[in-house]
Amino acid sequence: MPETLGHGVSPFKAVREKVDVHLDRLLPPESLPPEELHAAMRYSVFAGGKRLRPVLAVSSYFACGGVGESIYDSAGALELIHTYSLIHDDLPCMDDDDFRRGQPTLHKKFSEYIAVLAGDALHALAFEILAESGDPRIVSEVSRAIGTEGMIGGQVADVQAEGRAVTLAEVEGIHRRKTAALITASIKIGALLAHAPDKVVEQLAQYGERLGLAFQIVDDILDVEGDFETLGKTVGADSRLEKATYPKVVGVEKSKQIAAQLIREAKDMLTDFPEKEIFLNLADYIIAREQ
Amino acid sequence: MPETLGHGVSPFKAVREKVDVHLDRLLPPESLPPEELHAAMRYSVFAGGKRLRPVLAVSSYFACGGVGESIYDSAGALELIHTYSLIHDDLPCMDDDDFRRGQPTLHKKFSEYIAVLAGDALHALAFEILAESGDPRIVSEVSRAIGTEGMIGGQVADVQAEGRAVTLAEVEGIHRRKTAALITASIKIGALLAHAPDKVVEQLAQYGERLGLAFQIVDDILDVEGDFETLGKTVGADSRLEKATYPKVVGVEKSKQIAAQLIREAKDMLTDFPEKEIFLNLADYIIAREQ
Repeated sequence: MPETLGHGVSPFKAVREKVDVHLDRLLPPESLPPEELHAAMRYSVFAGGKRLRPVLAVSSYFACGGVGESIYDSAGALELIHTYSLIHDDLPCMDDDDFRRGQPTLHKKFSEYIAVLAGDALHALAFEILAESGDPRIVSEVSRAIGTEGMIGGQVADVQAEGRAVTLAEVEGIHRRKTAALITASIKIGALLAHAPDKVVEQLAQYGERLGLAFQIVDDILDVEGDFETLGKTVGADSRLEKATYPKVVGVEKSKQIAAQLIREAKDMLTDFPEKEIFLNLADYIIAREQ
Repeated sequence: MPETLGHGVSPFKAVREKVDVHLDRLLPPESLPPEELHAAMRYSVFAGGKRLRPVLAVSSYFACGGVGESIYDSAGALELIHTYSLIHDDLPCMDDDDFRRGQPTLHKKFSEYIAVLAGDALHALAFEILAESGDPRIVSEVSRAIGTEGMIGGQVADVQAEGRAVTLAEVEGIHRRKTAALITASIKIGALLAHAPDKVVEQLAQYGERLGLAFQIVDDILDVEGDFETLGKTVGADSRLEKATYPKVVGVEKSKQIAAQLIREAKDMLTDFPEKEIFLNLADYIIAREQ
């Protein structure tokens, strides 16, 4: 991720490091029982990762005039949710992935039951942290984004679409729920916690939906064109599982065009938004990323 | 469960039926995609069950002077949490149970990945509903009760204790976390939502901890002495898995004595509590139950 972009308040690297400091404080120490569970939670959370969702929440918070440090806890909670979803998606009964972020997946490194329960524990801890914000809207927003109309619904549709022909509308629907919903919620909760007006929250949400969809399309493309070294996970896994992806449905070139178009649309959503620079840079990063 | 006990505001059967009406409204319909996921969620939630946690929350709410119907949603959320935990506990990588409440367990009826995701979806939906109460303390209370210091921590310790010698203190610690924590939280959230004074919330919590521990000890005893017809699940499963149970550590008779003592202590906690009748009846039910 580029480290020196635009907005002075929240350059990416500084945000990532700060989120990690908060996550280290929020996660129970490995020395505390049940030690293996806590070690498993930390293994997955600190295995790397772009911290995109926290970066979006923090950027949105400060762009909307938020002050203070409390946003970093809520932002960290989003990463816990994302990590839990990856742990469960990687399970043998789902994508059966052996590598994630260059390391063995949690069920390979520990065991399957620890992977199920570490995911559950991160899920619960995330809501404990979000509730600490004192704003129940944040809990509502995230829980809806990851429920059956959002992330989990998308994951079911994703598994169900394996091995059969899908339409572009169908794969778009899967990606919107599986990935874009939580990314959109991340941007919204930053704005909500900064007490932004409804109109601004909605404007950022519109940007987020397009950014999130583009993010997943780039993910699909990287699964075709990337390499294990850079990605840290098995390349070609989508193709092996006959997943519903943009490249499968419309080919790599057309997928790139669609992603680029979504990024342009995302940026257009913020034409009259004063603090847009960080979001424009994030959009450029999303389309250009190699991991 | 006895149907005609004491307190006019919340006899058990009426509460159970009302909670189920709310759950039916809160759970997405099976006709809505992803249909299989929604069907799976409903299959597990409506497979029966005593609705003990909702009954406790509702009883506590009205005993503390709460008014209106909103408690039934939060109470239903507790049942969703409980159901999610049973679904994940039954998975092949954990207790590997084939029957629950007289029906095939969810992963047997549907599939393993649907069971993981239906559990996750119920978990998220529960927090969505709890957030609707507008009181972030409720979300905090439940998330802590089911986290690594509570239910999930207890489940890990439970699996880790299989097949080896355990002390009484150890099995008590497992049961307190695995079962009593959420039961205690259920009583507390009723009181919190009714704006009970801290002293009352604490008093009910003290009752709940003892009731919850007694409940799990009776569960252990029923696994030895009960029958499949009445219990709706495989008898002797604890012994097969060499689980840490009270009967294993101190024998059935001593387990019964400990449970009875806890029930007496639970009742004693409420000596000066004006609306105690329902809770005394609940305590009597817990110790006498056959399923």
